[in-house]
Amino acid sequence: MQDTVKVAVDAMGGDNAPLEIVKGAVEAVNEREELHLFLVGNKGKIEAELAKYQFRQEQIEIVSATEEISCDEAPVMAIRKKKDSSIVVALNLVKEGKADAFVSAGSSGAILVGGQLIIGRIKGIERPPLAPLIPTLKGVSLLIDCGANVDARPSHLVQFAQMGSIYMENILGISKPKVAIVNIGAEEAKGNALVKETYPLLKECQEINFIGSIEARDIPYGEADVIVSEAFVGNVILKLSEGLSSALVSAIKDGMMSTTRSKMGALLVKPALKETLKKFDATEYGGAPLLGLQGLVVKVHGSSKSKEVKNALIQCIQFKKQGINDKIKENIIKKKEETMN
Amino acid sequence: MQDTVKVAVDAMGGDNAPLEIVKGAVEAVNEREELHLFLVGNKGKIEAELAKYQFRQEQIEIVSATEEISCDEAPVMAIRKKKDSSIVVALNLVKEGKADAFVSAGSSGAILVGGQLIIGRIKGIERPPLAPLIPTLKGVSLLIDCGANVDARPSHLVQFAQMGSIYMENILGISKPKVAIVNIGAEEAKGNALVKETYPLLKECQEINFIGSIEARDIPYGEADVIVSEAFVGNVILKLSEGLSSALVSAIKDGMMSTTRSKMGALLVKPALKETLKKFDATEYGGAPLLGLQGLVVKVHGSSKSKEVKNALIQCIQFKKQGINDKIKENIIKKKEETMN
Repeated sequence: MQDTVKVAVDAMGGDNAPLEIVKGAVEAVNEREELHLFLVGNKGKIEAELAKYQFRQEQIEIVSATEEISCDEAPVMAIRKKKDSSIVVALNLVKEGKADAFVSAGSSGAILVGGQLIIGRIKGIERPPLAPLIPTLKGVSLLIDCGANVDARPSHLVQFAQMGSIYMENILGISKPKVAIVNIGAEEAKGNALVKETYPLLKECQEINFIGSIEARDIPYGEADVIVSEAFVGNVILKLSEGLSSALVSAIKDGMMSTTRSKMGALLVKPALKETLKKFDATEYGGAPLLGLQGLVVKVHGSSKSKEVKNALIQCIQFKKQGINDKIKENIIKKKEETMN
Repeated sequence: MQDTVKVAVDAMGGDNAPLEIVKGAVEAVNEREELHLFLVGNKGKIEAELAKYQFRQEQIEIVSATEEISCDEAPVMAIRKKKDSSIVVALNLVKEGKADAFVSAGSSGAILVGGQLIIGRIKGIERPPLAPLIPTLKGVSLLIDCGANVDARPSHLVQFAQMGSIYMENILGISKPKVAIVNIGAEEAKGNALVKETYPLLKECQEINFIGSIEARDIPYGEADVIVSEAFVGNVILKLSEGLSSALVSAIKDGMMSTTRSKMGALLVKPALKETLKKFDATEYGGAPLLGLQGLVVKVHGSSKSKEVKNALIQCIQFKKQGINDKIKENIIKKKEETMN
């Protein structure tokens, strides 16, 4: 079938592997006929999980990998040594063109390092950013970069802005996505050295709709579609959003259970509250793509349940259909070469 | 009176000046007899506000200042040119020893620059950090630095950790406060160049109870009492916490108003919910001190109401009584000199 999208899935990665990974894979193929999945990992364990479900057998293939990379291992060493780990075997399927994409809930470090070492960057892309969607009052924003690229340079951030724009326009269907850089004030003169150097470059950049600085306070209000920052700050934004939302929700729930009166009220507000909190639930939005590689790599949360895995797999279809990597090559790399000539 | 604590108050700073500032000042003197306040600003306006209240006249003195510094002005220029602004006049009262402390809801930049240029740093302190208390599930943590000290060096962060410890131990009464550095992973090897260089220095530091890295996700759970970071990241944490809390609360309130059933429930949960959200309300915790100056400078939120102003003024009493600056001199500067000799 011409439209088949082949995805290598790390069946052993994450807190709930292989159970939730296999379940998510089955849910995905049952929803989308064009998916073909390679479940990579311990054959016996995967078979035992698959035996629980009904699905079209031709859509799921098991690929054996006898090793696993844990989150505690040094990524570079793990990728180099564990040639038969689920991550390395799956990444090789992408490298060899047998799969279009790789999805994993495993070690972020190993996925980032493996993506670069095994699949490799698109020629001209300086660094591949990890770009999750974060919930806002208006919908979602792309936070780019939350990966392991510490101590970034201005030219990296410009490419992040360009790739983020292409992603939001083509995957989320947002026309002229608003791009902003994370800063500690709205004025152009504010910021650290990196932001001050990057700001004028983004302003000059023709291909993006740059709206200036965004203060962290405005991020949850959805003031920008693409939020550019170096990875350390991006990681802090992502993790703090997760931690604060869950802390606040648990405090509110505890508060509601504190009196008889509020307990009665809690029963009545529960359905509406659930609906609200669902919007602020990151699992709704699939995984975070690692952009700029010669193939798609999607990192899903270590604690992912089947729903997040399924959503990440379905996201891969859109990524391939829209030819995101071709657009990155055309819009960023070609233009860069033109400017240099 | 020996115990008198004299505070110069910027009556013209912030969104609600002079109304809420004067109101907060009156509330503070009515609560604490040892306070003596200088309300600095437009004499006529301050008198008009004061006329609304009952208080012991000898506790409040008006000091005239004919100029104001707005938040849009370049701080260094404003401090140098506007010699008769409420900020400059008030800071001079501290410099001349007429006041122990300065409290303002005005331009952060001007307060930070003015504090350093007019009052000056304690000898040996490299940079004065702005250190607000942020609400957590366990109480509060001190987030140090959220100021304007961008592109910090490791030695700065070590002093922040030391000053923050002294503050939490003496003002909040926390014995051996847990100190952590904001990082993107728990392992010592993780982080950007600044964190990697600072980590071993904090580990060696005898005077503090260093517990290692803290991921942003764990900050709202109160895992550390003193949270060390450079100002850019600190500012992002502070602003994102504020923005996300208010966005989430407004989404929850809207959600509760969405159906008749949930509206009824909302009435019942309201009192309990209010109590919970109060704990996550930054105004409960007074202002943010600018530590390491030869006098106390406290920045309160631009949108402060009287309650925050009052709390910040009362905080100044504790600061003086505990001799925080003497402790900073003794524990940080003396030890530093000893090590160098």
